[in-house]
This record gives sequence, C-alpha cells and structure tokens, in this order.
Amino acid sequence: MSLPSEVTVLKGSKQGVAVAATVPGKTTLQSNEVALRVTHSGVCGTDLHCIHDDMVLGHEGVGVVEAVGNAVTKFKLGDRVGFGYVKDGCGECDRCVEGAYYYCQVAPRRYGLTDHDQGSFSSYAVWTDTNLHKIPDNISSAQAAPFLCAGLTVFTPMVKYGIKPDHRVGILGIGGLGHLAIQFAAELGAHVTVFSSTESKKEEALRLGASDFWLSKDVKTKKPDLRLNYLIATATSLPDWEVFCEQMAPFGHIILLGLTNEPLILPYSLVMGKELSIHGATTSKPSEFNAMLEFASEHNVRPIVEEFPMTEEGAAAAIAKLVDGSIRFRGVLVC
Amino acid sequence: MSLPSEVTVLKGSKQGVAVAATVPGKTTLQSNEVALRVTHSGVCGTDLHCIHDDMVLGHEGVGVVEAVGNAVTKFKLGDRVGFGYVKDGCGECDRCVEGAYYYCQVAPRRYGLTDHDQGSFSSYAVWTDTNLHKIPDNISSAQAAPFLCAGLTVFTPMVKYGIKPDHRVGILGIGGLGHLAIQFAAELGAHVTVFSSTESKKEEALRLGASDFWLSKDVKTKKPDLRLNYLIATATSLPDWEVFCEQMAPFGHIILLGLTNEPLILPYSLVMGKELSIHGATTSKPSEFNAMLEFASEHNVRPIVEEFPMTEEGAAAAIAKLVDGSIRFRGVLVC
Repeated sequence: MSLPSEVTVLKGSKQGVAVAATVPGKTTLQSNEVALRVTHSGVCGTDLHCIHDDMVLGHEGVGVVEAVGNAVTKFKLGDRVGFGYVKDGCGECDRCVEGAYYYCQVAPRRYGLTDHDQGSFSSYAVWTDTNLHKIPDNISSAQAAPFLCAGLTVFTPMVKYGIKPDHRVGILGIGGLGHLAIQFAAELGAHVTVFSSTESKKEEALRLGASDFWLSKDVKTKKPDLRLNYLIATATSLPDWEVFCEQMAPFGHIILLGLTNEPLILPYSLVMGKELSIHGATTSKPSEFNAMLEFASEHNVRPIVEEFPMTEEGAAAAIAKLVDGSIRFRGVLVC
Repeated sequence: MSLPSEVTVLKGSKQGVAVAATVPGKTTLQSNEVALRVTHSGVCGTDLHCIHDDMVLGHEGVGVVEAVGNAVTKFKLGDRVGFGYVKDGCGECDRCVEGAYYYCQVAPRRYGLTDHDQGSFSSYAVWTDTNLHKIPDNISSAQAAPFLCAGLTVFTPMVKYGIKPDHRVGILGIGGLGHLAIQFAAELGAHVTVFSSTESKKEEALRLGASDFWLSKDVKTKKPDLRLNYLIATATSLPDWEVFCEQMAPFGHIILLGLTNEPLILPYSLVMGKELSIHGATTSKPSEFNAMLEFASEHNVRPIVEEFPMTEEGAAAAIAKLVDGSIRFRGVLVC
C-alpha cells in the first residue's frame, strides 16, 4: 500500500487551541518503522502542556498497521497497534539497553521533544517498532487509547513498587488516572480506598472496585486509622500531606503521578517515623507496556471513555471537559 | 553467677545532662532474657532527645553475657553481644512476625518508650534474645558499639534499596553515620562521592573509601553532572534539595537518615522528571542487624571512635564533642 504524502493532523497553536493542519507524510519507511492509520487517540492532561506549541498533538494513539519497514518482524499489515509518548532512543546506551528509552542519553525521541510532525491527533503516524504495542483482541480501539499513557502511568509503578493482594491501597483522585488505578489495584488483589473531594464520585468508585470511599476533608477531621501500604496520588493538586502521611502504615509507599508546579512539602517526622518511600513515576519500558495491556486484557480492566470526533471542534470539546473536570473519565478522539 | 541487685547507670535529668544513679537490678530472668555486663556504649545523637528524661540513657550497648534465661539457646555465658534501641515486641503480630519489632502493634518495647531502667549507659543490662546480637570475633567491643545504631542505620537501607557495584553513591555529611556510610558503600562496590561543608574532612573521606569529595557550596555553583544513583543524607541539617536533586540520575534513590524538625521541601518537578524515590530510614530487623555485623566483619568496615570513661564527666565530654561536631567520629563510653 502506498503511504499518503500529506497527513491531516491537529496541532497546538499560539492561541492555545488544537487547529487542523496538514503535514508532509513519510512515504518511505526506515527499516524499523511502522506506518499506521490512526483510528483513535486519547486526550491527556499532558497534551495541554504542548497546546501552545507548533507540533502535532496526542500521545495515546491507536491504529491499524498499513506498512512496515523491512526489518520489522513483530507487526504485520492489519494489526491493531498503539503508541505512547516515547518513540525511540539510540538503542545502545545503558538506558536504552534497559528499555528506558525515555531517558536515552544520546538521541531520545519522544512527544514534545522531537518528531513534532508525529502524534496521535492525526490520520497517520510512523512509529518505531521498539515502542509500538499490539492491542489485545478483547480491548476495543477506543478503550485501548487511554491505556497508552494513563493506564501505563498508573500500572507500572503499582507493579514496580510491589502492590500485592491484601495490601491496603489508597487512590487520591478519581479522574483519567484514578479510575484506572482503582481497577488495577482491585484486580491486583488490594483493598482499595478512594479519596476524593467530590461526594458524587463515590458510587462510581465503588462500582470500579473500591472497598471504601472517603471525602478528603473527612480524613482530616475524622482521622481514621487506615494504615495504607500505598497511596497513589493521581490528582494534579497536591493534598495536605500531613493528613495523608498520618494514614500510612510503616514502610508505606506514596506514588506521585500528577504533574504540578507546586513544591513537594512533606512532614519530615512522619516520613522518618514511618520510614515512608515517596516515588515520582512517569515513564515505562516497552516490557511494562506489554505487561499492562496483557493484565488489562485478562482482568477486564477498561477505561470509561467519552468519544469525540477528531476535528477542531471535537478536540476543543474534549479539552474543555478535561479542563473543567467533567470528563467521565477519559476523552477519546475518533477518526 | 548471681546477678547484681543494684546497677550503676547514667540517666537523663531535668538539667539536660547525664547523671550517675543506681537502679534496681533484675536478679531473675524471664525465659527469653539475657543478662550482660556492659563494657562499652556508643553515644548517639538520639540520646540527646532523651537527655531531659528520667531514664537510663544509651542504645549502642556491647557487653559480655553473664546469665541466660532457660529458653535461650543462641547465647552462652562469656559471649560478646550487643543491643540497639529495640528490645522486643509481642512476637505474634504481623510486624513482629516479619521481624519489624520496632513497629509491634501490640506491645512494642524500645529505647525511650519502655524499659526506662535499661540502657547501655549502665554497668548491666537485661535484654531479650530476639534483639540481641553476637559480636564477630574480629571486631573489638569499642568498635562494635557504634554499629548497634549508627552502622545499622546506614547499612540497612543501602542493602534494602539495592546499592550494587558500579552504582554512583553520594554521601551527604561525614560524621558518625557518614563515615560508616562511606566505608559500607565503597565495600559494596559503589563509586562514592562525599559532600561536606568542611574542606578539612576531605582527606579522611578519601582514606575511608570515597572516590570524590565536593564541598556542598561548590555543587551549587559549579553544577557538576554526577548522575548519582543514590544520595544518602546523613546530616541533621537538610541540604538545598534542588541542588542535590539536579545531581541525581533517573530512578535515583535519596535515603534520609538524619533527624530534624524541619519540613522536607523537595522540587516536585525534579522528583517527577527523574522519577526519584525518597526513603525515610530508621529501623532494622534482627536479620538485617546480623547481616550488617557480618558484612562489617568480612569487609573490614570499622568505625573510628573516641573513647571516654563511662562516668558523668566522660558522658559530658563525649556529648559536648558530639554537639559541637568535633567528635571523630563516634564517642564510646567504656566501663
């Protein structure tokens, strides 16, 4: 199949909105590249960091393989595949050899940094095979898209930092990340407590697998003794850390997922007195990507999505709901 | 051997100095108890937290077994043994079963909390066998004492959080903890960089096994690119975290050992951008205790100590040097 010489995309703009544009298509592939016709893209908070930049937006892409480079063996025409914000690295430095392409010390390629003509708000994309992933058959393309960033962001540190059955896991915030975190934690066998500032989300939290629900303000005043082994902070606004550190068990882990410009001010005496570990978590390796998709497939973890057309209007509507917090729970643009 | 009915000790006092006193001796032992004639005690910063309290001071005790309870099989008369700040727990709760007696949920017994008539600033002590440890033959009793808290404090998180050969390890501060941390990290095979505010400690740091030495203020101005996998903060005054987080490699670990009342204010963007883990570390399990002593024995790790007599005057002199920072590097009281 011949590849299109012109690709329709949505780019950031000075006005801070996604605007329709065309970019030259790649009509020939490097040996390790795969061309896919994009069918779906998740809309992530991180896209807003790039919304003023002259670049193709989107880093939760799902599509169908239309062509492969001559060294590609993992994918064939017609495969449903997905990509996130990492595209490639040098492949040879210590980081790449470990699979941590994001931190490639020589030639990192990723969303916002390089390849500004590639993204998932697009009709086509060309990606390297190392960081492209097959979508399990029982996950629809619309549902697959949010896994490519949101799902990965929550699942990787859960496994890396050792959540096991019977651990008590707190999830702070129930949005794009949080609603997946609840499901993953529950399916890992943990006892899940959800904290939110919004009473109306209680029913949804319990339905997704939570055992308990607390309004954040009640934790401060009622001072339960939750003895959490893990607290996963998915919200972008930081909580009252003193209040939440008091709810941690000895040797507890606090996993930070939300991005904010605020400083991280922790109660030193509680961090020391309970020997807490605090982890920043943002990236994943390809093997962790595949493990997450496989786990979601087997355990029936699925995002709840709202679909919008992949147009200027559709992107604007999805972004508006993301910004005002009314999205339930992840916007997906559909070509 | 009959046990003394009266024991000479040094206690805290309202005046904030160690005063000589006597306390009733335990003349009969519980089945799991061991009586030891204390010969040496380290002097630790934590003792200063109790210096105003009516309790026997000291939690780095070394001595010789003089009697054992009838269920004790691990120790025999004449053994050189040591104890730290944990004495016992219920033995049955989840924490105790894991060896984390410090966090016993039922009946924790430890320095400053219970057993105020027991401590290592004393001529005798009665300890439970679970939290008593044999001193390896090639470690003198004076050198053994600082291992019982300081050594343990630095070694346990180094192993727990995975320091391996070729890791780049920064040690912040070179005092009672720091001078042991340098040796342990170097013997674990790491490349060790020491940070201090005192140029005069450079030679000692290199002699102890450091590869590099940086004045803390130079790190801020010269901005080296150290890419530390670990930073072990042994000083009680907190550093400029922004400056030191910039020196961390992706996925780096910051291990907090010093106790302070200041809040922990970290640069959120660097914690997230490098996916750092920050760990509070204070306690150890008996198995970690034994592993530390064995490692020190085999790898010739030894504290540098200054000896003082175990008298009011000796304790006052050791504490004065601890407080003004002139101790090189750990005070030990000798009976």
